[in-house]
Amino acid sequence: MSGSIMGKNFSIATWGESHGKGLGVVIDGCPAGIPLSEEDIQKDLDRRRPGQSPFSTPRKESDKIEILSGVFEGRTTGTPISLILYNTNQRPYDYSEISKIYRPGHADYTYDQKYGFRDYRGGGRSSGRETAARVAAGAVAKKILKELGVQITAYTLSIGDVEIDRSRFDHDEIYRNFLAMPDKEAAVRAEALLHKRKEAEDSAGGVVECLIEGLPSGVGEPVFEKLDAVLARAIVSIGAVKGFEVGSGFAASKMPGSYNNDEFRYDEEDRLHKLTNHAGGITGGISEGFPIVFRAAFKPTSSIHAKQKTVDKEGNNVEIQIEGRHDPIIVPRAVIVVEAMTAITLVDYLFQRILSRMDLIKKALT
Amino acid sequence: MSGSIMGKNFSIATWGESHGKGLGVVIDGCPAGIPLSEEDIQKDLDRRRPGQSPFSTPRKESDKIEILSGVFEGRTTGTPISLILYNTNQRPYDYSEISKIYRPGHADYTYDQKYGFRDYRGGGRSSGRETAARVAAGAVAKKILKELGVQITAYTLSIGDVEIDRSRFDHDEIYRNFLAMPDKEAAVRAEALLHKRKEAEDSAGGVVECLIEGLPSGVGEPVFEKLDAVLARAIVSIGAVKGFEVGSGFAASKMPGSYNNDEFRYDEEDRLHKLTNHAGGITGGISEGFPIVFRAAFKPTSSIHAKQKTVDKEGNNVEIQIEGRHDPIIVPRAVIVVEAMTAITLVDYLFQRILSRMDLIKKALT
Amino acid sequence: MSGSIMGKNFSIATWGESHGKGLGVVIDGCPAGIPLSEEDIQKDLDRRRPGQSPFSTPRKESDKIEILSGVFEGRTTGTPISLILYNTNQRPYDYSEISKIYRPGHADYTYDQKYGFRDYRGGGRSSGRETAARVAAGAVAKKILKELGVQITAYTLSIGDVEIDRSRFDHDEIYRNFLAMPDKEAAVRAEALLHKRKEAEDSAGGVVECLIEGLPSGVGEPVFEKLDAVLARAIVSIGAVKGFEVGSGFAASKMPGSYNNDEFRYDEEDRLHKLTNHAGGITGGISEGFPIVFRAAFKPTSSIHAKQKTVDKEGNNVEIQIEGRHDPIIVPRAVIVVEAMTAITLVDYLFQRILSRMDLIKKALT
Amino acid sequence: MSGSIMGKNFSIATWGESHGKGLGVVIDGCPAGIPLSEEDIQKDLDRRRPGQSPFSTPRKESDKIEILSGVFEGRTTGTPISLILYNTNQRPYDYSEISKIYRPGHADYTYDQKYGFRDYRGGGRSSGRETAARVAAGAVAKKILKELGVQITAYTLSIGDVEIDRSRFDHDEIYRNFLAMPDKEAAVRAEALLHKRKEAEDSAGGVVECLIEGLPSGVGEPVFEKLDAVLARAIVSIGAVKGFEVGSGFAASKMPGSYNNDEFRYDEEDRLHKLTNHAGGITGGISEGFPIVFRAAFKPTSSIHAKQKTVDKEGNNVEIQIEGRHDPIIVPRAVIVVEAMTAITLVDYLFQRILSRMDLIKKALT
Repeated sequence: MSGSIMGKNFSIATWGESHGKGLGVVIDGCPAGIPLSEEDIQKDLDRRRPGQSPFSTPRKESDKIEILSGVFEGRTTGTPISLILYNTNQRPYDYSEISKIYRPGHADYTYDQKYGFRDYRGGGRSSGRETAARVAAGAVAKKILKELGVQITAYTLSIGDVEIDRSRFDHDEIYRNFLAMPDKEAAVRAEALLHKRKEAEDSAGGVVECLIEGLPSGVGEPVFEKLDAVLARAIVSIGAVKGFEVGSGFAASKMPGSYNNDEFRYDEEDRLHKLTNHAGGITGGISEGFPIVFRAAFKPTSSIHAKQKTVDKEGNNVEIQIEGRHDPIIVPRAVIVVEAMTAITLVDYLFQRILSRMDLIKKALT
Repeated sequence: MSGSIMGKNFSIATWGESHGKGLGVVIDGCPAGIPLSEEDIQKDLDRRRPGQSPFSTPRKESDKIEILSGVFEGRTTGTPISLILYNTNQRPYDYSEISKIYRPGHADYTYDQKYGFRDYRGGGRSSGRETAARVAAGAVAKKILKELGVQITAYTLSIGDVEIDRSRFDHDEIYRNFLAMPDKEAAVRAEALLHKRKEAEDSAGGVVECLIEGLPSGVGEPVFEKLDAVLARAIVSIGAVKGFEVGSGFAASKMPGSYNNDEFRYDEEDRLHKLTNHAGGITGGISEGFPIVFRAAFKPTSSIHAKQKTVDKEGNNVEIQIEGRHDPIIVPRAVIVVEAMTAITLVDYLFQRILSRMDLIKKALT
Repeated sequence: MSGSIMGKNFSIATWGESHGKGLGVVIDGCPAGIPLSEEDIQKDLDRRRPGQSPFSTPRKESDKIEILSGVFEGRTTGTPISLILYNTNQRPYDYSEISKIYRPGHADYTYDQKYGFRDYRGGGRSSGRETAARVAAGAVAKKILKELGVQITAYTLSIGDVEIDRSRFDHDEIYRNFLAMPDKEAAVRAEALLHKRKEAEDSAGGVVECLIEGLPSGVGEPVFEKLDAVLARAIVSIGAVKGFEVGSGFAASKMPGSYNNDEFRYDEEDRLHKLTNHAGGITGGISEGFPIVFRAAFKPTSSIHAKQKTVDKEGNNVEIQIEGRHDPIIVPRAVIVVEAMTAITLVDYLFQRILSRMDLIKKALT
Repeated sequence: MSGSIMGKNFSIATWGESHGKGLGVVIDGCPAGIPLSEEDIQKDLDRRRPGQSPFSTPRKESDKIEILSGVFEGRTTGTPISLILYNTNQRPYDYSEISKIYRPGHADYTYDQKYGFRDYRGGGRSSGRETAARVAAGAVAKKILKELGVQITAYTLSIGDVEIDRSRFDHDEIYRNFLAMPDKEAAVRAEALLHKRKEAEDSAGGVVECLIEGLPSGVGEPVFEKLDAVLARAIVSIGAVKGFEVGSGFAASKMPGSYNNDEFRYDEEDRLHKLTNHAGGITGGISEGFPIVFRAAFKPTSSIHAKQKTVDKEGNNVEIQIEGRHDPIIVPRAVIVVEAMTAITLVDYLFQRILSRMDLIKKALT
């Protein structure tokens, strides 16, 4: 394994380059008996697809998913599910510049250092297009979670310095505006910011927040596989993510303990509550059974039209101006990727949760 | 594996509870031929030991490390290294309260939910004492890194709202003040803050920054095992960590791409430089060969003397006042834990770096 | 992972059913810089292809391999290599009987028990056709081994009770006769046996022997990953294999130690020799640097035309007569599968061999 | 991981050298709630202990097990169980010869080749004493299996050329004679053989057979983790094992398919039966729910008193006569090791069996 396989019991192996023949994922460990169709997966892929807003590249990726194995008579068989997306839009590119020059913010330089050479066509394996395979696998994971009553909702919390106002939080708005922001007013201001950046041939970043509801308590393992730790790995592994925090996150470092600790109470109907949720739903690395909240910080898109200083492979100082049509912001399209990585991670640790207690094991096996 | 084993080629398996017989770690995958003594490990453990400052518990943990296997005639043999720390300070405790009541901010509730019951003595496996085994393993990892010219330096960046002034950064100061802050003035102000919190029977959190120097380019794997992703997992797995960021981190989400992208230049002596380091030394998940910088946010210590609302196992609303002597801040003692987790992670991916190119493999094997 | 992923550093994930859309394999961990073409892989697949002898099914599987990713400008890039074989010969079958009746010797019953239902078309995932993906991955592994001077040669040692005479061992004969036997005379007698079994609507098994040459000493890990142990797993995982032995194998259990121990000697040119090779080239689970020899026992083909007693899904005792054209022997076609599984395993442990010594690690990295 | 860690969900990490401070094992993944005491483990260790028969070394290993973690109030807590055996019998040895000369049949030469040097005291990590840690972990695995109704029974099938007569199979006899043979008459003849070998300063090997009863159907994964494949790995990883076979094993290679296929029948009470068990209880790598039978071939003990030719580290041809008291046969003491490795493997795949079907997962989690 060199980084393209993840998961212990629910495992995925992804492959493919941006401008190669296609990309895909093999899922090994999907239990038998789950209804699964190409539509179930296409739905999530469509949320990631570019060309749907003025801020995403008008490049056309058809991204039509095909199930190659592991499903029989509409249900998963328990054996590997192979999913494929062919790259259809292979018009001839001119790679002469990009093949020799290291674009700032991109992995061109580090791939050359690591491997001795690289597939420079459209970023090759380091392209954001790689996340399409994650979304496809995530859609399968979500089908499993649905059977277990778990719901994941990610959305844009901020773009540049425009943040949503939580008092105006509107769940439906996430799917209504181009920016996946649950606050219409903030979305309008963020659009204005993006138009300015676009004019300046520049780009913007933002923060995605993710909410997990319905997850039972007891998910996550002590020490190295704390639920927040494995979520951190999953989320920071998304290309442009530079930060991760759960619950109060970095702000917690400034709070006194008396404020940050979440107090427990039973209500009149004897249901357990926490008076606050600074922990974000995880203590000691294990889910509490209350909603989980975490955030991911995305850097601004690296591909910008503005002229930049850089070097080429031959050791010269040069300048580069990246051609083509690129998203001034990738955050709205990344929302579904955050959901996918969360779903893939949760399934694995939900499975493991069963194995932590002999009574649950017996219940399943006898 | 249920969370106490980590690492692929350099693997560690930790065990032990706070108030049990002891704790330890088995390292499988330490190459043969490295000089290793108990002193090498003890040195790091001593940096974690409590009772060394007015802000760490006067509890006495002797934490004397013993090497049980894997070292012969002063050198590692390539077979598992077993390290043990006996718990010597086992005076009789009164666990009657703690066994029944869920302490806010602690894992008491989630462990009971996950496992059906728990070793409540001193937090059992969820105690911060668990990190001693990580520090021991980290000391071995550091020996390997030293042979490869890699240096890790972690320090306290902030405590509560007191942050260091980077213009006053003084490396030696890290080892001089109680708080591991590389800025004497900030340390004085942070001490004042801590005294106030202590008087108020309250606690504080903070941020640890970590600097990696000398790491070659090409370390880290694409997609799911990006170097920042695996560091995120390693760091967020430390008990009180609630956030992780690399390079500009969350701040990057507000920057324009033209500012956040690091431009490359060759200097007069034809050495490659980056004009900035917003990426924190990692692009596309792979080390650039430039210094790596990341930060971890620690929540305030959960154990406080102030009275708190909570519930007990039997379903009653109660109040708790945690007795005993607890650190009002754990950040300074966590600095060495951050270094340890970083070292353990780097060794694994440095090893893997060899396997990414056929020319390096041939060089080693022929 | 549910069994279709193997390997730690050189990992493969296979997928696909016998009569589904196709099958394939994703290789994660192939080092960058190795020349690789579809022809390299096709060559090995052609050795497995049916329809080449009177004893293999005239069923036509075109088995044309396609490389979908991980190769750029004729060389491996270090990122996942996705290989696909489309199932082209999808003429309409009548599955009405096979879908309800459990064929003796097949996995029909156990798949239904495990998963609740099964893809019954041609055996689904449990079909021998699954090994095509192994052969494809094995061809890639062999390219790596070639660069390191390692050579694997498997051949048929016996069919039914017809065994080769080692004094007539002829390497070239392996590729000359239908049965891959390195002894022409034995091959003729085995053919006669097979004709008789075929007439009787019956089938035969046999033993494959495998020779590894050029493998350096020091490959294999102590305790659970002894080289013979991981080879055993790899080989017994091939569908019809019922036994594995290395060196003298089961015969060693009857020998006195004084006979079974291999004595060491330096010859006149100061080269180290063993006077015998009862160990089969592995001691303590680690390769000696001398040729490695192991054997795999294959059961007779389960699909026979003769009438057999069995049961159906509804709980009735029935009789079955399996239609279609089936190999009376699969051993000759399995020879290349044994080579493939050996190659895949060796690459992983050759890589790991580097990581067992600090001097080799330093040599590679500095 | 360099070979001393095994298992996915039920994982064990072993450590320790023959003449070091001790040896032990860390178990990560034992579910919470299982009653476990040191006696449970000691019982199995006592079956492995030397000095109990005229054919095992009178060397005294007290092998008193100590539980260091993971058990609280008599039950497993779900966190790592650390088990330790101190080496108490550390009388001064003379290692001058063994440190320089490579003993035939031992791993002295391969360890030096792999690691550059070795802990030569009593074989270091390659000593058979390493299996004590496996037996300890196996005892814990058996406790889990017991809760699930699974029973493992291993015994000596043959010693040298003396094999039991199956018509005289007597289960109780296994625990009655020194050789763990379920046939008293065979045991007497085997004893005679061993006396002769001992007088000749020579040694003997044998075959251990293992019977698994009560294992439900559906255990084992398709393709690379077939139940027989993972058992093969587990069993061949035991030091002296040179061969593994399941069901009819190597004999199956000679049988016609019509004979080797096991036919199914419902009996009058509508219970499913197989008319034969040539498959050994596993088809397609998945347990049938019928008894599983496999065999392991052990080579004769490598340590013999007779003079042998060999070489030393400096490149000289020499002769060696191994001093000390060694077992002329290790097979009877290996019987419990076979049981242990089987138990450890079964637990892991029984756990995984739950995760193969959505209905079982739901049953456990809701």
